[in-house]
Amino acid sequence: MLSKSRVKYIQSLGQKKFRETEAVFIAEGPKLMKELLEEKSADVKEIYALKEWIDDNLHIVGNTSVTEISEADLEKISHLTTPNKVLAILNQFDNGKLPSAKGKVTLVLENLQDPGNLGTIIRIADWFGVVQIVCSTDTVDVYNPKVVQSTMGSIARVKVFYTGLPEWLTSQKGTSVFTATLKGKDVTTVSKISEGIVIIGNESKGISAELLNLADVKITIPQIGKAESLNAAVAAGIILSHLLT
Amino acid sequence: MLSKSRVKYIQSLGQKKFRETEAVFIAEGPKLMKELLEEKSADVKEIYALKEWIDDNLHIVGNTSVTEISEADLEKISHLTTPNKVLAILNQFDNGKLPSAKGKVTLVLENLQDPGNLGTIIRIADWFGVVQIVCSTDTVDVYNPKVVQSTMGSIARVKVFYTGLPEWLTSQKGTSVFTATLKGKDVTTVSKISEGIVIIGNESKGISAELLNLADVKITIPQIGKAESLNAAVAAGIILSHLLT
Repeated sequence: MLSKSRVKYIQSLGQKKFRETEAVFIAEGPKLMKELLEEKSADVKEIYALKEWIDDNLHIVGNTSVTEISEADLEKISHLTTPNKVLAILNQFDNGKLPSAKGKVTLVLENLQDPGNLGTIIRIADWFGVVQIVCSTDTVDVYNPKVVQSTMGSIARVKVFYTGLPEWLTSQKGTSVFTATLKGKDVTTVSKISEGIVIIGNESKGISAELLNLADVKITIPQIGKAESLNAAVAAGIILSHLLT
Repeated sequence: MLSKSRVKYIQSLGQKKFRETEAVFIAEGPKLMKELLEEKSADVKEIYALKEWIDDNLHIVGNTSVTEISEADLEKISHLTTPNKVLAILNQFDNGKLPSAKGKVTLVLENLQDPGNLGTIIRIADWFGVVQIVCSTDTVDVYNPKVVQSTMGSIARVKVFYTGLPEWLTSQKGTSVFTATLKGKDVTTVSKISEGIVIIGNESKGISAELLNLADVKITIPQIGKAESLNAAVAAGIILSHLLT
């Protein structure tokens, strides 16, 4: 049985301001939980789960506090449409200071708004071995429950930073900056890179003129048919696939 | 003012069985509406819109019946989290009989469940000039409002069929069948194609053993990092980008 105040506390973590004050976030469901419990970088503080999940997973929870709850309680605290056996509170990752782009591939996201897109992009980054993402401060919060869910665990392996992009990009002189635009060099003809910054823009507005000005190479995914654009995460996937493999 | 029975009718179109009986579907929002009104293949039957949308768009609606409604009415009939000025009822597309794979690139979807994924894949197909998609009968309905919204208008340019996949694939002998799997030929090394069938599997289970057996070429997106898999739509985008451009 969960106390009312605990229910209220967990519900409040759906909001960014409360997540920030507490420096925690929520993750849900057996698959994601297993991924996070196995990942050293993920610091699981508290687990709330149905009896059946606890019975099956006691061997992987280690010293983490586990509270058995009812389906009715899970429904109250879950941020999923269909609550799924287990919910955990984790400490936010301590990524330290802003990263350097030297010697690495860095993804830069400008004003990305859709939580599913950000989560999917973190998963893509993790697939292609991109270890850091730098987001504009107006990009959706990485600890938004929908972002966390759609990373499928990759949130524990990719460092996500927020900052003013023009300043950060200007401080990374020497590393080539690639932007995805509708009129640029065919991405299938660009050479593979082992160092570089790749900018993905807002879902409907694309990349701002200010960032476009800071780009060294403008690249385009060749269009054969008539769709006006590609989904931001799909574009990120295609571009990284051509630049990195 | 909308009658109660009209509100009920439009709400019912959120369910597949009512859409099928009526052979119609719903689309919403100014951007999608503009795309669909401009597309000859889309047959817009009725439009329900706020005064401001009607004032701005009267020149593009042609002979379509337009009903001015209040924000309160729109909220009742909308399937969006944030209703957006206009909702239309369209006739379902008449795609005729099952297509031949000869001379074309055909996308095949097995048991895709997420509406956003299907919509995004239709948009990707449209970007890369793929004009037909054949889905297993247990794939999410193309006229699901969330699918329609995420196609961004591409639903009017890509033909989507539903059928038993083993039978259809067996009837297409002579056309190479490519499947995305976790262990196959590196997609970046596969030659460009102008004819072929590309299978994308279920979000969590991948491709069934039965379909895998019918594949001529198994392809894989090289993995550098640690993510267990890629989102189905992202995988489709990357594969089509390498096979077609």
